[in-house]
Amino acid sequence: MLWFIGLGISGIDGISSNTLKIIKKADVIFLENFTSPIGKQEVSKIEKLVRRKFKIAPRWMVEDGKTILLEAKRKTVVLLSYGDPYVATTHIELRTRAETEKIGTRTIHGASAITSLVGECGLHHYKIGRPVTIMREISSLTTVYYTIYENLIRDSHSILILEYNSDTNFFLGPKEAFSNLLLTEGSQKRNVINESIFAMVASRIGTKNQSIIAGKLSSLMDADFGKPPHTIIIPGKLHFTEDDAIKTLAKCLDDPSDNSSKIQKISQQMLLKYLPKARKALEEVQRQFKDNKDVQPIIENAHLYLDDAEKFQKEGKDELAVLSVGYAEGLIDALRLSKGIDPWAQSL
Amino acid sequence: MLWFIGLGISGIDGISSNTLKIIKKADVIFLENFTSPIGKQEVSKIEKLVRRKFKIAPRWMVEDGKTILLEAKRKTVVLLSYGDPYVATTHIELRTRAETEKIGTRTIHGASAITSLVGECGLHHYKIGRPVTIMREISSLTTVYYTIYENLIRDSHSILILEYNSDTNFFLGPKEAFSNLLLTEGSQKRNVINESIFAMVASRIGTKNQSIIAGKLSSLMDADFGKPPHTIIIPGKLHFTEDDAIKTLAKCLDDPSDNSSKIQKISQQMLLKYLPKARKALEEVQRQFKDNKDVQPIIENAHLYLDDAEKFQKEGKDELAVLSVGYAEGLIDALRLSKGIDPWAQSL
Repeated sequence: MLWFIGLGISGIDGISSNTLKIIKKADVIFLENFTSPIGKQEVSKIEKLVRRKFKIAPRWMVEDGKTILLEAKRKTVVLLSYGDPYVATTHIELRTRAETEKIGTRTIHGASAITSLVGECGLHHYKIGRPVTIMREISSLTTVYYTIYENLIRDSHSILILEYNSDTNFFLGPKEAFSNLLLTEGSQKRNVINESIFAMVASRIGTKNQSIIAGKLSSLMDADFGKPPHTIIIPGKLHFTEDDAIKTLAKCLDDPSDNSSKIQKISQQMLLKYLPKARKALEEVQRQFKDNKDVQPIIENAHLYLDDAEKFQKEGKDELAVLSVGYAEGLIDALRLSKGIDPWAQSL
Repeated sequence: MLWFIGLGISGIDGISSNTLKIIKKADVIFLENFTSPIGKQEVSKIEKLVRRKFKIAPRWMVEDGKTILLEAKRKTVVLLSYGDPYVATTHIELRTRAETEKIGTRTIHGASAITSLVGECGLHHYKIGRPVTIMREISSLTTVYYTIYENLIRDSHSILILEYNSDTNFFLGPKEAFSNLLLTEGSQKRNVINESIFAMVASRIGTKNQSIIAGKLSSLMDADFGKPPHTIIIPGKLHFTEDDAIKTLAKCLDDPSDNSSKIQKISQQMLLKYLPKARKALEEVQRQFKDNKDVQPIIENAHLYLDDAEKFQKEGKDELAVLSVGYAEGLIDALRLSKGIDPWAQSL
């Protein structure tokens, strides 16, 4: 029998007597501390309470799994972890392998750090986009950058989990993460990250000295976040109750601001550029061809398609809007080309 | 003082003695049961254990907040809720108001049903896209439909929370939700939902009789999910360890399959439709105008822009590809219109 037990985020205070009983009775107790750090003091408090010693299970042991599964075949084994056990994909894999080998598994879920910090930051859960981990290597930031971009486009908040390595006790700091994001903006140039975007740093969530500091990147670069662990949130569009909550629950170095409103979809950027240009070109062409009856259907259609493009844009049908503006430009430029006018020498 | 206490998802077994102590000592204890249902038996078990009676706090009372805040000004008040307290946005609002009115707040986080069920289903947390709630009104399904679409495009999993109304004890059933999604496909036609997509229904997560049933929509329409609450998951691209986990942890009526691979971005759908049509139209126009020297630059440009469209598509620059194919079509149709040919009577 293999128990997966999540200890939650509040140490001894968050563990039920039922859970303590299960730990006490187990034959072997492993403590996994590589997905999230658990304070040594908290661990020895729990050990004292259940009068047992925990074996540390490093990453290789959980990934390899053999030792734990071998024990669990004949004995009752408990694998303890911080937060909720299955937030770590390694634990789901171990459970799958156990079940495949006919070893029974049981689970006690715990409060997860990620889930808890969303609420502590005053943010709405249904607005959380796909989360992403920032590693220290700059090359890993491209995925992070586009995840933030995609989330912002959809008005969603981005949770950026910072690299933690239990072997070397390495925690990626928020400031290094911000610097690397700014460097990535320099190479990707989609106007996603700059010094004035609003971000939040949630530190030590669930402990007595948790802190949430929020502000523009430029302000956060000078802030002191204290000891790790830290998590960064880049909020998207803020509901007014989220705005109120952030001001009340976080230490705000700057007022919250809407990062999503500053970002534009690539298609929106194109429409903003091409729609007015096409309107202007159409006016010119209309003057040039006003005496040519044969081409009036072409001009009429160009008008209709530009109107359609605007309508589609308003309805959020960006792809159709782009197709329509392209089509209208094609109609217009065919007329210009037929008169020997080079459309690319002009404004278009 | 106002305590926000999450009871987790496992009833009495998941509540720590520290939490029980806080409840026992409180002057007033409210139980909120409108965001998620809590079994009456579980509630009376907790009441017996702490030897206190809970006041039910319906939605209006938490939203209005006055009664609770008035009590909390002079007394120690506890607001209990299922799962984690701040998954409900109403609770974050109440906390913000309390802090604004100088009422101290404290929090005990609990295991959240949504967070727990992701792991129970064997899915990776970092692949969860924006969650969304399905209401019974068919009109509410459009947002749900496009949320699933956006998540699938990004290989993300969609969590569909089903409407629950505590006043009328109404739970939206998974089958009604599936039917409504299929109806929405009928009107939106983006090939997101059909009877062969793979979905999962997680029921009563955290209780002793939890179940996870997975399969094609057509199979799930005939399944018996038992009593509510239920949550639907539409997985996106599955990692092979997720595939293994689903087969092991869920009752699979069909093998898991990759829903993301079957879906196409709207821009891709458009290019697939319009590129070959434009090529064909261009060939026709080329024949019709082969003796007209003046229009050769138009034909040449149409060729160049269709080549560009294909190149942009390969590079993943979908917006530019759509703009280019639209432009080429405009050039082609201008020629047709000038000859009095109605382009829309043709294949285009």
